[in-house]
Amino acid sequence: MSHSLELLSEHRCFDGWQRFYKHESQAIGLPMRFSVYLPPQLQAQAEKDATSGAALMGQGKVPVLFFLAGLTCTEETFMIKAGAQRYAAEHGLMLITPDTSPRGAGVEGETDHWDLGVGAGFYLDATQPGWNQNYRMESYVTQELFEIATQVLPGDSQRMGIFGHSMGGHGALTLALRHPGKYQSVSAFAPICAPLQCPWGEKAFSTYLGADKAVWAEHDASVLMSKVRNPYPAGILVDQGLADNFLPTQLYPEAFEQACQQAGQPLTLRRHEGYDHGYYFIATFIQDHMEFHARHLK
Amino acid sequence: MSHSLELLSEHRCFDGWQRFYKHESQAIGLPMRFSVYLPPQLQAQAEKDATSGAALMGQGKVPVLFFLAGLTCTEETFMIKAGAQRYAAEHGLMLITPDTSPRGAGVEGETDHWDLGVGAGFYLDATQPGWNQNYRMESYVTQELFEIATQVLPGDSQRMGIFGHSMGGHGALTLALRHPGKYQSVSAFAPICAPLQCPWGEKAFSTYLGADKAVWAEHDASVLMSKVRNPYPAGILVDQGLADNFLPTQLYPEAFEQACQQAGQPLTLRRHEGYDHGYYFIATFIQDHMEFHARHLK
Repeated sequence: MSHSLELLSEHRCFDGWQRFYKHESQAIGLPMRFSVYLPPQLQAQAEKDATSGAALMGQGKVPVLFFLAGLTCTEETFMIKAGAQRYAAEHGLMLITPDTSPRGAGVEGETDHWDLGVGAGFYLDATQPGWNQNYRMESYVTQELFEIATQVLPGDSQRMGIFGHSMGGHGALTLALRHPGKYQSVSAFAPICAPLQCPWGEKAFSTYLGADKAVWAEHDASVLMSKVRNPYPAGILVDQGLADNFLPTQLYPEAFEQACQQAGQPLTLRRHEGYDHGYYFIATFIQDHMEFHARHLK
Repeated sequence: MSHSLELLSEHRCFDGWQRFYKHESQAIGLPMRFSVYLPPQLQAQAEKDATSGAALMGQGKVPVLFFLAGLTCTEETFMIKAGAQRYAAEHGLMLITPDTSPRGAGVEGETDHWDLGVGAGFYLDATQPGWNQNYRMESYVTQELFEIATQVLPGDSQRMGIFGHSMGGHGALTLALRHPGKYQSVSAFAPICAPLQCPWGEKAFSTYLGADKAVWAEHDASVLMSKVRNPYPAGILVDQGLADNFLPTQLYPEAFEQACQQAGQPLTLRRHEGYDHGYYFIATFIQDHMEFHARHLK
């Protein structure tokens, strides 16, 4: 599959390059945007082709870390707010963040709710009529962006990590579990751990996947984890704020914790007094996540 | 003068507290918003009164660092994008950022231009009819916010630094020079160094200050610097990106450089290849500025 990228903007950042791209997505069937941080270790390639948006293929390949953002976010949010580039530069990691849904699919009702449709793709391929044409974020992230990261951009296909926040934490955990061997490390900030049990999950899954809860279960991190045996022997890192408004009704880290115990999966679940659901929480602990992935992807 | 603050939100961040306040500003004559980062060193006081928005006066006082943002920004921009809290926490500095202008003054034309009126207060007290009622950002920052920082919040009035970006860099340099002894350290990112010579300055100064260029000169960092003798013996730090679109026509760092030479003022002016005018540039060098101020305010 060939991929043609349009470079929308480029900003020097921590001696590397913060880029925003647009492309005609084959998985989604619409134009999509994503952001990439290229670390300074790619100096030679990047200087050869700093502004064309074309190939950056060189000798050197760097590990890739996908960040999946939460409800209402775009490909910009994490790059603006988390302060991750400093550590990506330090450890020589490429960062990629997709948008959180298709834009402009025109499905009825897709802009009526902040937690469904636009800005709320839930990182799965919808099966239901109307939605199933474009709402295919799982294929987009795991196949198309994966190819772009490794075939157009100089990402190393053997050293891939994935993490995310809230809906994107759900995305990171489920995509890691649904695609064994694709991602060598996984972590999350305040992830939706048990969508089968929470209003966000019920609303999104019934709309995107239909009424059959057996199908939903294939996209529930806690259910998926309970069915495997220690898929990430080096551990999974999850941070959760205890002043997070969504903790009591939407996130259920204890369900994931229990599933990990059942699966023999080492889990570091850190509960932080006073921290809420937002990016001030993420920024506080981003260094730990970046170092966690860097360690596993070295 | 008594000050009553309404706490709009609070977020735990790097073990400290990111707060957003609203208050009836006496200097501006309208409600104003500002943001504060309280470092973890204030633990004891903050825990006593974490959510009321009332006094945080305690035994301990911490140095205060004012950040003045650029055109179109609000009190949120710097706190979201710069990644400064990590270093404020490390060095025990309080950070304060005001909004960039009054909101809702109702002056004719105040919302017609992104570089004049709303979001573009230029950190001066307007003298011209219509504007002079509310556009009084110099009094607001140097008097009212100063009092709030030291009398309502636990800021040390003897250890104050000021820095800013673009229009806010102009603000930091001019307020530091116009109020000798008030700020012990000053730095800037891509400041407007010679507003008398640039379109932004001409537009704002003619509107806010009238036709007399002798009055304008009192708000031009390069002119002000040329008239003093070494006001900051420990030096001033300025960072400037060389891929900054506004560099050729609006910023004139060389004018400030020359004025510093004339004034015997030690200046570290760093020119950075490839960096533009935005917050990816600021985030890259924020650590250096935080350490610069921390050193001077210890």
